[in-house]
Amino acid sequence: MGVNRKKISVIGSGFTGATTAFLIAQKELGDVVLVDIPNMENPTKGKALDMAESAPVQGFDAKVIGTSSYEDTKDSDIVIVTAGIARKPGMSRDDLVNTNAKIMKAVASDVVKYSPNTTIIVLTNPVDAMTYTVFKESGLPKERVIGQSGVLDTARFRSFIAEELNISVKDITGFVLGGHGDEMVPLIRYSYAGGIPLETLISKERLDEIVARTRTGGGEIVNLLGNGSAYYAPAASLVVMTEAILKNQRRVLPSIAYLEGEYGYTDIYLGVPTILGEKGIEKIIELDLTAEEKAALDKSAASVKSVLNILQ
Amino acid sequence: MGVNRKKISVIGSGFTGATTAFLIAQKELGDVVLVDIPNMENPTKGKALDMAESAPVQGFDAKVIGTSSYEDTKDSDIVIVTAGIARKPGMSRDDLVNTNAKIMKAVASDVVKYSPNTTIIVLTNPVDAMTYTVFKESGLPKERVIGQSGVLDTARFRSFIAEELNISVKDITGFVLGGHGDEMVPLIRYSYAGGIPLETLISKERLDEIVARTRTGGGEIVNLLGNGSAYYAPAASLVVMTEAILKNQRRVLPSIAYLEGEYGYTDIYLGVPTILGEKGIEKIIELDLTAEEKAALDKSAASVKSVLNILQ
Amino acid sequence: MGVNRKKISVIGSGFTGATTAFLIAQKELGDVVLVDIPNMENPTKGKALDMAESAPVQGFDAKVIGTSSYEDTKDSDIVIVTAGIARKPGMSRDDLVNTNAKIMKAVASDVVKYSPNTTIIVLTNPVDAMTYTVFKESGLPKERVIGQSGVLDTARFRSFIAEELNISVKDITGFVLGGHGDEMVPLIRYSYAGGIPLETLISKERLDEIVARTRTGGGEIVNLLGNGSAYYAPAASLVVMTEAILKNQRRVLPSIAYLEGEYGYTDIYLGVPTILGEKGIEKIIELDLTAEEKAALDKSAASVKSVLNILQ
Amino acid sequence: MGVNRKKISVIGSGFTGATTAFLIAQKELGDVVLVDIPNMENPTKGKALDMAESAPVQGFDAKVIGTSSYEDTKDSDIVIVTAGIARKPGMSRDDLVNTNAKIMKAVASDVVKYSPNTTIIVLTNPVDAMTYTVFKESGLPKERVIGQSGVLDTARFRSFIAEELNISVKDITGFVLGGHGDEMVPLIRYSYAGGIPLETLISKERLDEIVARTRTGGGEIVNLLGNGSAYYAPAASLVVMTEAILKNQRRVLPSIAYLEGEYGYTDIYLGVPTILGEKGIEKIIELDLTAEEKAALDKSAASVKSVLNILQ
Repeated sequence: MGVNRKKISVIGSGFTGATTAFLIAQKELGDVVLVDIPNMENPTKGKALDMAESAPVQGFDAKVIGTSSYEDTKDSDIVIVTAGIARKPGMSRDDLVNTNAKIMKAVASDVVKYSPNTTIIVLTNPVDAMTYTVFKESGLPKERVIGQSGVLDTARFRSFIAEELNISVKDITGFVLGGHGDEMVPLIRYSYAGGIPLETLISKERLDEIVARTRTGGGEIVNLLGNGSAYYAPAASLVVMTEAILKNQRRVLPSIAYLEGEYGYTDIYLGVPTILGEKGIEKIIELDLTAEEKAALDKSAASVKSVLNILQ
Repeated sequence: MGVNRKKISVIGSGFTGATTAFLIAQKELGDVVLVDIPNMENPTKGKALDMAESAPVQGFDAKVIGTSSYEDTKDSDIVIVTAGIARKPGMSRDDLVNTNAKIMKAVASDVVKYSPNTTIIVLTNPVDAMTYTVFKESGLPKERVIGQSGVLDTARFRSFIAEELNISVKDITGFVLGGHGDEMVPLIRYSYAGGIPLETLISKERLDEIVARTRTGGGEIVNLLGNGSAYYAPAASLVVMTEAILKNQRRVLPSIAYLEGEYGYTDIYLGVPTILGEKGIEKIIELDLTAEEKAALDKSAASVKSVLNILQ
Repeated sequence: MGVNRKKISVIGSGFTGATTAFLIAQKELGDVVLVDIPNMENPTKGKALDMAESAPVQGFDAKVIGTSSYEDTKDSDIVIVTAGIARKPGMSRDDLVNTNAKIMKAVASDVVKYSPNTTIIVLTNPVDAMTYTVFKESGLPKERVIGQSGVLDTARFRSFIAEELNISVKDITGFVLGGHGDEMVPLIRYSYAGGIPLETLISKERLDEIVARTRTGGGEIVNLLGNGSAYYAPAASLVVMTEAILKNQRRVLPSIAYLEGEYGYTDIYLGVPTILGEKGIEKIIELDLTAEEKAALDKSAASVKSVLNILQ
Repeated sequence: MGVNRKKISVIGSGFTGATTAFLIAQKELGDVVLVDIPNMENPTKGKALDMAESAPVQGFDAKVIGTSSYEDTKDSDIVIVTAGIARKPGMSRDDLVNTNAKIMKAVASDVVKYSPNTTIIVLTNPVDAMTYTVFKESGLPKERVIGQSGVLDTARFRSFIAEELNISVKDITGFVLGGHGDEMVPLIRYSYAGGIPLETLISKERLDEIVARTRTGGGEIVNLLGNGSAYYAPAASLVVMTEAILKNQRRVLPSIAYLEGEYGYTDIYLGVPTILGEKGIEKIIELDLTAEEKAALDKSAASVKSVLNILQ
């Protein structure tokens, strides 16, 4: 693959993992290794081969391979973790958390064995706790273990606002703090259409509805699909973060970051505004919050802590 | 959606249909309507919504909607047909053909009811016969009903050659005539790497192996996946054809075209080199064939005819 | 060129006009006609041919032709006006205005003769007055005659802020009202980095310096070049507006628009926030201004009026 | 600029150099340093600043700086040389060659002083001799000093063929050996439209005309412009080669390469088919030539040798 090509490994070859691999190859961000467990090796190889066969018509030069061996991920510049199980009917939240935490530990250990200086982006739910688990297990510096949730939440919020106002998605800016989903803290006063504060363009009632819809955006898709969860927008969100790091774009994006005092929290992974560049999280931006916003963030942090407490 | 936006409908919201819709939106080729049967309406809406939510991070302005109502496809510029069933264990080929032909008839009739001047691209297998069925049922002029197989077969061939020679996929040209899969007639003497005939770069034995692999390329993916068939490269192939028509690029691409004497065949849909532009198939290119190539094409045509004969 | 291809004519084949044509072709927005006066016909043809010869390596399908005949612009979807002279040493402002107004009248008349339903975007300086002149002469509806200045001013502002903060240009939002250059009214309170108000990230002194630099951004380039003026960023700005219209993106962009009461002004072209879509200026967005901002905008409007008064 | 960003320096800020810098930034291939002599420093800075100001509207993150100091080129991954004078009326060929050779020596020496492991691509004419000069002066390995001419000649040829056949430029493959311009040896039998040999699609007379036009393609633009020479297609050609190297695409492209026995020539730079990847010229492809083609190539090589003999 050579020194001039970046290498990105995607752990988990389900819909989100596969779509992420596809988008990375399509953008020629580097060569892609799609990894899953041994009994999924053939389907993983099949998906990777199918993507590789699209290269001539899509016009990209990037290798895409499927594998069940972490040896193939050696010297990855970025590793994206989408592995894990979804909550099944009858499964307690604690069981979900502990099962996925066990998976995260195994993945983190295998990843750093072959790529001791990589940067890891975690998507697996509950993402704040799973990112924490990967951080602890991997031994990587905190700026190199990052969770994804805010880019996706913001994308959903922006798409709803663009539809509401019938304007380009390119001109909507949104902003989300805190945990994923229900615990999301959308900062409406930091959200704009073409630079114009949303509060001057949309009624408070309607904005509240859109915020509520954003909070349950993942569930809306789950309910529609009936079987499975969203993967197009999650994958695209992972790719934006990956590109920011690989190209050192220093983008201002919400990330799940390890806090050591920022916003008043310690030893927790929580969604905050960050600058993403080649070092991973190059900066955590601290915003002044209103009392109401701080209370919402506290609630979100408490919720994350309660999940962390489940971890055995 | 306005007069300045093209409208593309994709019939069938399975993996290939959904991926096709996603790629079209991503390229801002127009607004996309993803259609499936009523009992798939919610999953179809879920996929479309998920794609739409990726727009802000991918930076495209295109509406994507899911529906089970053909009314939503009204005035489509292009309709892509991916609907149909896959062959199941124990199902005879005749049953497969007749079931999908019935689906094609219903789709064609519903499509032209709302878009009487559209162009239809068919992917459903067996694709030569299914394109024929759509043509007959739709009443559209022959140049506006087109089947896809050669773009995909060629993409696979090109990706294998690029891997073999370790060079860019951008510089491999390939050429395929005849039916899909086993009946494919690859024209090696019209295939090049950077303009250099492949026969001077790769041994005959190895080329034969690569041709054989290309012929069974779909099956290779099916076997690896274990459940389901390829969709990334098929979708990308459909999008290349769609883009050629929507942008009037007049690309030289293999299409399944209705023949009225070309290559010596009549009243049949068969894979031949064509020029794709805003009128659909703007030209069928007739190549001089060697006796061997003509014999292979005859065999391929006979096979297509035998499928057509099944149609009730 | 066919019904599926848009047609864009660029009047004036100087650096800005030529670069605009090149960027439009590169993006496959449509076919391009580059127009200049008869004694510039050959250089115009030369530039167009050079661009067309880059198509195979850049991978775009778009015709680019150079001409001195307006007949070739027939049925243009968009016409971009970059023609006109630059102020020369010793030339009075009145002479400049009247010379360019004469050119605008000739251009507008020739354009609508062949494209009576087109949309015109004007770049020629002094741009507010020249857009007014084209509007009056063309007889086109007001929403179809648009001037460019705010997109460029904002681009400069955003690039300076990105450099100052060392973050991605993708995450800077800026906002400018009023005339071009010295009369520009930057709305700092509507400008953000990653959604965060600039005032919380940059000191007031430094922001004032950046605003001052933006105001004289055109002059800064003129001084450096020694001979001629900026063309890369102006061309890119024209292309953003063109794309918004051709793809009906309904982008929120500052445009020089004809005001009939908006912001308290009448019968004047002035820079205001607009929505650009297939109808041209689809909406003028009226913002609440502070007294200070309104005073600055009044001054800007008075300055435009004084130029309009020069027009014979 | 960081370890994750490539760095490309462009020597010579004339039209070709500036357009090359612009295209590289636009594609986010890396950060760009545009270099010219001290008395051109300000215009060079002006062009670079103008490009940088287009970044927000074009959506690229890349630094572009103008300078007259080679220190700013330190650790460039690629250096593109466009510096040199054009032949003026009354100037002998020998004077041109010796003047540009002197410039090449100074440039090569300054470049390797700060980037001892870089790859250099030369455009300055007469390009075969100037590439030779840079090679000898720089002390770089032969695979890291490359001349551009065949990509441009082929691009012109392809654009003419696409126009002749009214088909997409994407589907035309061409092939050129030997020197630039008059000494170009087009290999028609290795040139295709959609994989179909051109000889079966275009009459021999017409093909001869198109080849003749390609040979004098540079002169055609010079004559039209009246003042100056082509720069859009030359710049795009340089960027294709740059991208192939930076992304290790291993593209099959014609390059001016140092021959040590290939095609029967020694100690000469001549246009031959190559594979371009991260090591520069990774392979020279040797084709079987007909007697006629070999004779033409001999003539081309003799012409290059005669220029080399001028060099003092």
